[in-house]
Amino acid sequence: MTEHCPEIQAALLGYGTVGSGVYQLFQRQKHEFPHKLGLCPVISRILVRDLSRPRRGADPALFTDRWEDILHDGDIRIVIEVTGGIEPARTRILEALRAGKSVVTANKDLMAEHGAELFAAAEEAGCDLLFEAAVAGGIPIIRPLKQCLAGNYITEIMGILNGTTNYILTRMSRDGMDFDTALQKAQELGYAEADPTADIEGCDAARKLAILASIGFNSRVVLSDVYTQGISGLSAKDIAYAEEMGCCIKLVALARCTPSGIEARVHPMLLPLGHPLATVHDSFNAVFVHGDAAGDLMFRGRGAGSLPTASAVLGDVCEAVRNLRCGCAGRVGCTCYKQIPVKKMEDTENRFFLRMQVEDRPGVLANVASVLGNNGVSIAQVIQKARTADTAEIVVITDRVQERNFSDSLAVFSGMSVIRKISAVIRVYDE
Amino acid sequence: MTEHCPEIQAALLGYGTVGSGVYQLFQRQKHEFPHKLGLCPVISRILVRDLSRPRRGADPALFTDRWEDILHDGDIRIVIEVTGGIEPARTRILEALRAGKSVVTANKDLMAEHGAELFAAAEEAGCDLLFEAAVAGGIPIIRPLKQCLAGNYITEIMGILNGTTNYILTRMSRDGMDFDTALQKAQELGYAEADPTADIEGCDAARKLAILASIGFNSRVVLSDVYTQGISGLSAKDIAYAEEMGCCIKLVALARCTPSGIEARVHPMLLPLGHPLATVHDSFNAVFVHGDAAGDLMFRGRGAGSLPTASAVLGDVCEAVRNLRCGCAGRVGCTCYKQIPVKKMEDTENRFFLRMQVEDRPGVLANVASVLGNNGVSIAQVIQKARTADTAEIVVITDRVQERNFSDSLAVFSGMSVIRKISAVIRVYDE
Repeated sequence: MTEHCPEIQAALLGYGTVGSGVYQLFQRQKHEFPHKLGLCPVISRILVRDLSRPRRGADPALFTDRWEDILHDGDIRIVIEVTGGIEPARTRILEALRAGKSVVTANKDLMAEHGAELFAAAEEAGCDLLFEAAVAGGIPIIRPLKQCLAGNYITEIMGILNGTTNYILTRMSRDGMDFDTALQKAQELGYAEADPTADIEGCDAARKLAILASIGFNSRVVLSDVYTQGISGLSAKDIAYAEEMGCCIKLVALARCTPSGIEARVHPMLLPLGHPLATVHDSFNAVFVHGDAAGDLMFRGRGAGSLPTASAVLGDVCEAVRNLRCGCAGRVGCTCYKQIPVKKMEDTENRFFLRMQVEDRPGVLANVASVLGNNGVSIAQVIQKARTADTAEIVVITDRVQERNFSDSLAVFSGMSVIRKISAVIRVYDE
Repeated sequence: MTEHCPEIQAALLGYGTVGSGVYQLFQRQKHEFPHKLGLCPVISRILVRDLSRPRRGADPALFTDRWEDILHDGDIRIVIEVTGGIEPARTRILEALRAGKSVVTANKDLMAEHGAELFAAAEEAGCDLLFEAAVAGGIPIIRPLKQCLAGNYITEIMGILNGTTNYILTRMSRDGMDFDTALQKAQELGYAEADPTADIEGCDAARKLAILASIGFNSRVVLSDVYTQGISGLSAKDIAYAEEMGCCIKLVALARCTPSGIEARVHPMLLPLGHPLATVHDSFNAVFVHGDAAGDLMFRGRGAGSLPTASAVLGDVCEAVRNLRCGCAGRVGCTCYKQIPVKKMEDTENRFFLRMQVEDRPGVLANVASVLGNNGVSIAQVIQKARTADTAEIVVITDRVQERNFSDSLAVFSGMSVIRKISAVIRVYDE
């Protein structure tokens, strides 16, 4: 069957970590495709920036540095974009769609910021725009959310969506490393990029969350809607305190659809060790979803890497091929048909872990407690332990409180001479 | 939009726990469907056995006890079968497909035994046959395996696929209950049926495993291919020994695609507490999948219950509606295009936990060890502890060994007067 199966041509934009993985999987699966799909997708062109760099694993004749070679080749029906970043990816995807080509992309930057524009172009052209690889690497999550759970009102999506930060936090917790050492280790292992800002400051996770929330809540959420705080301010001390309280600290991406609007934020969070996300270690990702019908679900796996991400790309390619074969490209388009407002972070409610250095004299704890009380912040737990010279360390866990009230308390603290330093403010998981 | 959206008619076969949940979700989602799907599916007929029984929640005019009312109604494009069992479900699904209706079913019995026949009928008719609800309730697993992971060679599927037995094992482990008490508790809570045989003897899990293995390995595996052993023989003592060794006991469904064939079995297993499946408690289900590209994945959620199962049904209905709208019903058909042999259980390799009562005199342990040694069974660990009157209890953990060799040892033991009883034989997880 393989020999006589009609081919369908795809072009690959990018031949880095993910691109070469995609090419490799096409080779591995070439004898399966005809049976699975009734058509055999092949990569007939690979776009790279610099043709002079040596490329391993693929026939040199496939490579080109001219986008036009792909755009104007009517035999190429599918464009696979794995270059990342906004431009030139955005322009190319729009051009590919307008030329009637289906698009598979791993580009979270683009989907989190220009999803609406790209979907509009796909719909107008009657083409597929598929992006399973944009979120959580090899974990099937886009199609399950969009299709399998279509009979649910999704009310919560909570995930560990960035493997680099999860690896760093795992090493800080398991091996007592400080942040800088753990980051360096992550870079040595290739988990973190030379410039790790997007990962450690939470921006990467925020992009993925914007995409998941848009699908889950049927309302467009973009990157700028997501409150974002990274992990670079975390110390080994905070992790030790968390452990003492039966918790771990994870960089959590959390989106909720509430009667008063959508909440979407990425920040470190104290999670009880019994929470399913607390068992997600190293560079693994996991997504927890709550639907009114399905209840609690969790999806877990490799959130990055060449072959896991390529696995997601290939699943989408198979989908695009099936749709082209059946003449139903664009079968599942944009599902953001609502306009639900996104809440400001200051209007959300949270519990807090607050670690501060105060002057070690009678009455200071009472001062702290009264500032919190005056701002409507109720205290769930206090630990006062470490003492050096004339400074005492106080850790306060609050009950659930509006962010605004808690910020007001912090503002008052900053003007009090007995409070020498606010060392950490970390949100605490609250059911 | 809702008012002017064309309707598409579906019929519901069965109005029990799952059927009434499906009806309820249709009502909840009716204002969403037009936007999500461009069409509004409605349940226009409900087939029940006994019309005289009172039915809550649905218009009495919808009910019928005549299958012909549905089969011969050309306006009904989708048949949703949630009655369970082989007949009359099989005949009705075949008739529905031949009449050009798409079919959504939650029927694991049928899919595990007659999947090939049903798929052939669906393909001939150009109709959808969707069955996400047949395995693991609300957890999206069929579509992820079949579509999202289509670029992988799946080599292992390991799951907790039966909530009843997992609930029983959780209570035995957490509360020290014996099997009968835990079963009774499960029945009181509605987790176990009046006749719990299919659940506790592993048959329910075996059906689901057959379905998952067929999809994962692209080769048809049927119920009779699955070696099945239940949990009714487990005692609290075995669970206590397991815990002492840092393990729990779960009813595990395991399928592997190896160079020498497919392995498919359901049996109790000692799992190290660090294994992701060890943290799946109560009536939750989870499926662990290994793909050559995606790596390790886990899907976890509610494996049964009215709304979780209805959630899976509704996801399939949305899929069927989209396919009908695009004229591509039957877009994803049977993917069992290989004929991989299924290995006999005796040809597989396992590690074993063996608990036995022996005569308490010198040399008996040496006898046991030499029988095992003579049959090529290597011992990893021995515990000898409990002693009553003249009987000692020995627990042996073996290294990995062929089932056949281990069975030969057991046969020898049964003829030895110093061995009074084989109290437990449980397989042990082995990476």
